[in-house]
Amino acid sequence: MARTVLFISDGTAITAETFGHSLLTQFQATEFRQIRLPFVDTREKARDAVELINRASEADGVPALVFNTIVNKDVGALLNDSQGHVFDLFGTFLPPLEDILGAVSSSSVGQAHGIRNTHDYEDRMEATNYALTHDDGISSRMDEADVILIGVSRSGKTPTCLYMALHFGIKAANYPLTEEDLEKPRLPEFLRKHKDKLFGLTIEAERLAEIRETRRPNSRYASIKQCRYEVNAAEALLRSEGVPSLSSTNASVEELGSRILLELGLQRDLF
Amino acid sequence: MARTVLFISDGTAITAETFGHSLLTQFQATEFRQIRLPFVDTREKARDAVELINRASEADGVPALVFNTIVNKDVGALLNDSQGHVFDLFGTFLPPLEDILGAVSSSSVGQAHGIRNTHDYEDRMEATNYALTHDDGISSRMDEADVILIGVSRSGKTPTCLYMALHFGIKAANYPLTEEDLEKPRLPEFLRKHKDKLFGLTIEAERLAEIRETRRPNSRYASIKQCRYEVNAAEALLRSEGVPSLSSTNASVEELGSRILLELGLQRDLF
Repeated sequence: MARTVLFISDGTAITAETFGHSLLTQFQATEFRQIRLPFVDTREKARDAVELINRASEADGVPALVFNTIVNKDVGALLNDSQGHVFDLFGTFLPPLEDILGAVSSSSVGQAHGIRNTHDYEDRMEATNYALTHDDGISSRMDEADVILIGVSRSGKTPTCLYMALHFGIKAANYPLTEEDLEKPRLPEFLRKHKDKLFGLTIEAERLAEIRETRRPNSRYASIKQCRYEVNAAEALLRSEGVPSLSSTNASVEELGSRILLELGLQRDLF
Repeated sequence: MARTVLFISDGTAITAETFGHSLLTQFQATEFRQIRLPFVDTREKARDAVELINRASEADGVPALVFNTIVNKDVGALLNDSQGHVFDLFGTFLPPLEDILGAVSSSSVGQAHGIRNTHDYEDRMEATNYALTHDDGISSRMDEADVILIGVSRSGKTPTCLYMALHFGIKAANYPLTEEDLEKPRLPEFLRKHKDKLFGLTIEAERLAEIRETRRPNSRYASIKQCRYEVNAAEALLRSEGVPSLSSTNASVEELGSRILLELGLQRDLF
């Protein structure tokens, strides 16, 4: 029997969801049914939310968990009359922050994932366009790139680049190491001249074969033999060129992106 | 003078950053210098972090703010000896959660943004590939799509689709309304047959002209006259076809994505 968890906010509820989800991953024996309720910004919507909480609690036979980041205190307070266990995330931390900063919080809704800092937001959008136009070796002009991911086809370069662009505003290009590249002792010159920006993505041959199989079933491209050859050759090339690398076999794009920025010293002030 | 804020975790620090950043947006009069410190998973790295906190606190003349989601209690505790104000995000909420759930938290690191649920992670990656291969009207076969965004060129369709795909695992296609489409009284038939999945993105003509100007300076495409014509015609078409729509002028991809999922009833259980 799963326990219902609700992430409720007057904004996107992305903060409530991200934080609540993190806490829940620490209880892997419990099964959770997770629901996000964004834009709960009126008393009426809050009362609808209470009804949903109560219905879920009754159906589950245990009180639902509620992670609440509603900024408007009057609206948020209504949730406390529900049958759920309500964790008031802002209410817990804003008062001590107000003390430390000697300032009163602005009670403004939906700032976290809005376009508060237009400049940073435009950077993220520009980086996303950059990633799209510098994906998969489309362009070999990479002067503007912050990072250039290299690796064999389907090693995870594209989603990792898109994540870094969308989330961090990092201009991430990527180039697939082809068989022709792998037969040579050195990386192509247009990559070598950007050595400081290069980062390798590798992957276990077995996992690569699985991924390629869904794309081109029963092909040479997806065969374990071909995958082993390419992965081994790519890893040897990265090693001999001194290009740092990570494996995408067991790492998410979030983990890969964060590690790459850290290792290349590309950590920026955020947002 | 900016106050330094550090988001520290033994994982990606995305949770600490997302939550801490949300709190800080409530204090818009204060300027913050925000630093993310991911993968602080040893005592040695924690001691390095303490040094960084202390240096920043001394340079700023006020204690740095530290949002800490380190799961390992021994490693995390070291931060409390720093000169910063440390907010222990997990330490605050895990004990009451343990009481409610009657379970002990697993103290496992980096679960939140790892590949805990392989199936969901693969959905997200598949959706990202889908968004790329169904971007900008590349493919008119949209049977698999969860949502199809339509709007004039540069109204924000592509980044919104990518965000929905990467973050929510939603298969989002998009189609640009061309001048030819806008001259007709109805949407193209291959869109009309997916009416329930259609969502419009619109944008103020002035903003659209700015965005297009950076892409093709001094072009008819970027002229305010052309932008006004296209936006008006697109909005009229969306209205007459009964397609719901949102404006991207002042909304981020996070807000647009969340609202679209809510309005189309595509809210999924998360992660």
